[in-house]
Amino acid sequence: MRDGAEFDTIRALMARWGDLAVDIGDDAAVLAPPVEGTRVVSVDACVEDVHFRRPWITAREVGVRAAVAALSDLAAMGARAEYVLIAFVIPEAWREPLGDVADGMGAVIREAGARIVGGNLSRGAVFSITTTVIGSARRVVPRSGACVGDLVVVTGLLGGPGAATQAWDAGESPTAWSRGRFAAPAPRWAEGEALAAAGASAMIDISDGLAGDARHLAAASGVHVELDVARVPAGPGITPDMALRSGEEYELLACLPATAYETLATGWATVSAVPLTVGGVVRAGPEDATSARATGARGFDHFASRKTVR
Amino acid sequence: MRDGAEFDTIRALMARWGDLAVDIGDDAAVLAPPVEGTRVVSVDACVEDVHFRRPWITAREVGVRAAVAALSDLAAMGARAEYVLIAFVIPEAWREPLGDVADGMGAVIREAGARIVGGNLSRGAVFSITTTVIGSARRVVPRSGACVGDLVVVTGLLGGPGAATQAWDAGESPTAWSRGRFAAPAPRWAEGEALAAAGASAMIDISDGLAGDARHLAAASGVHVELDVARVPAGPGITPDMALRSGEEYELLACLPATAYETLATGWATVSAVPLTVGGVVRAGPEDATSARATGARGFDHFASRKTVR
Repeated sequence: MRDGAEFDTIRALMARWGDLAVDIGDDAAVLAPPVEGTRVVSVDACVEDVHFRRPWITAREVGVRAAVAALSDLAAMGARAEYVLIAFVIPEAWREPLGDVADGMGAVIREAGARIVGGNLSRGAVFSITTTVIGSARRVVPRSGACVGDLVVVTGLLGGPGAATQAWDAGESPTAWSRGRFAAPAPRWAEGEALAAAGASAMIDISDGLAGDARHLAAASGVHVELDVARVPAGPGITPDMALRSGEEYELLACLPATAYETLATGWATVSAVPLTVGGVVRAGPEDATSARATGARGFDHFASRKTVR
Repeated sequence: MRDGAEFDTIRALMARWGDLAVDIGDDAAVLAPPVEGTRVVSVDACVEDVHFRRPWITAREVGVRAAVAALSDLAAMGARAEYVLIAFVIPEAWREPLGDVADGMGAVIREAGARIVGGNLSRGAVFSITTTVIGSARRVVPRSGACVGDLVVVTGLLGGPGAATQAWDAGESPTAWSRGRFAAPAPRWAEGEALAAAGASAMIDISDGLAGDARHLAAASGVHVELDVARVPAGPGITPDMALRSGEEYELLACLPATAYETLATGWATVSAVPLTVGGVVRAGPEDATSARATGARGFDHFASRKTVR
């Protein structure tokens, strides 16, 4: 994209974003110090035909997904978002729908209470959005702190995005619920913050699938994460297997001591309308290994009485 | 890129970067507060067949250019770099040369005194590198502060990148000097910091060409920037026109009062081996307009005695 087109596009985006994007236009954006806590930053890319296909979702939904995918990484640290920078690579065919993409991103960023402070525009053969998110956390929760004996909890109901893409790949239509989970996920801000405040020892967002992300967390923490397949919170019509491997959920997977869980569960209804489910336990054992056991498998008795809280 | 390949690639990159990239692997990176001054952040994308073509330069040089393009935006604020996040989109053909790209980026980031704290890997049909850079400035210099009467100064010798791409596009070989300016630019850290400390009123890096970036600065400052074509510092064999429009220079264009310039020029040899040239003056006048006058044009008498300093 050269001069004229680039600046026309920037002006059009700024007009759509309004007060969400002010003071843009310098070589770099100036950040205020975090109001409290620790500054955190992450970057995430959304590439056409890798992370979505054009016929599946609207341009606005493409924007929503790109923003959520990036912002969810802050929620998974127990943080809130403050600043966003957006780098678009824009082929000719995306010039017109770009405004709707911007609207979708803008809605998510506004809802998060953050502002757009910078970005980059480039032409290119393949549409992509690379989103940098900057926030702060009162208490940072890494993925490396899981302790033996912690409970493993999961927010929300899993399997929607996986079921939706499976349906589309087969030339079928996904259920409305699955489609909605793919097209319009939400960062779990309140849930992440409440889990951090409750004393979560480790947390990660589910982007590679529950089983995969449990392995990442286990490897980082040097523990074994044991999931109980029968307890994994699956959405309507979702198989246990799909709930374990469906990615791009942007739900949270966290570990915390049983006592901390009990306290959190008691007040959970005031935190969120999204369910919080105990789906496993942290064991000593081989790092980077996660087992997924069948219902009633031994080892889960000590939290057998615990149910999903809503 | 799915699971196995992605994590193999991350491990290979981490091995190459060594102590340049530590504590990577959480959802988001934790940043320390700036040691002093103001935190600044910027993002820049480098896309194959838009910002470079594969036959022109080595994979290592691709990495050098991508890192410099992003870091230069911090230098243009008078800042130093502290943290870098790198998002790669990697087609199959780039899997093998990716290590050399990483080496090029790593060398520039190490030289800058910064660290790699995060990133993202995605497969995709077109190779791109989107680089987020975070730093701090003792004194932030925006592009919007130019005052009527300020001198306009430029670091380095211009025209190399433009001449190199023109030669390649014509099927010819660029001169060694022009090729070097395209393939191995450098962020002007010491120069930017010295200009900020000297009291520069406005600063921008030359990525769209001297004339174009002077217009950006003029528009942001609400002034008219008058360039003297005969004074623009052109490299060996470079025409004045090419020096005005050659982009991706990553030299600095700054405005500052004449007295501040005199003081800075006196000690410039201790700052940098790169020349600092007075190439114009800030006038009252129509915003978003930059004139480029011929040698000896009226209006430049008040700094006619000033030469390039080295």
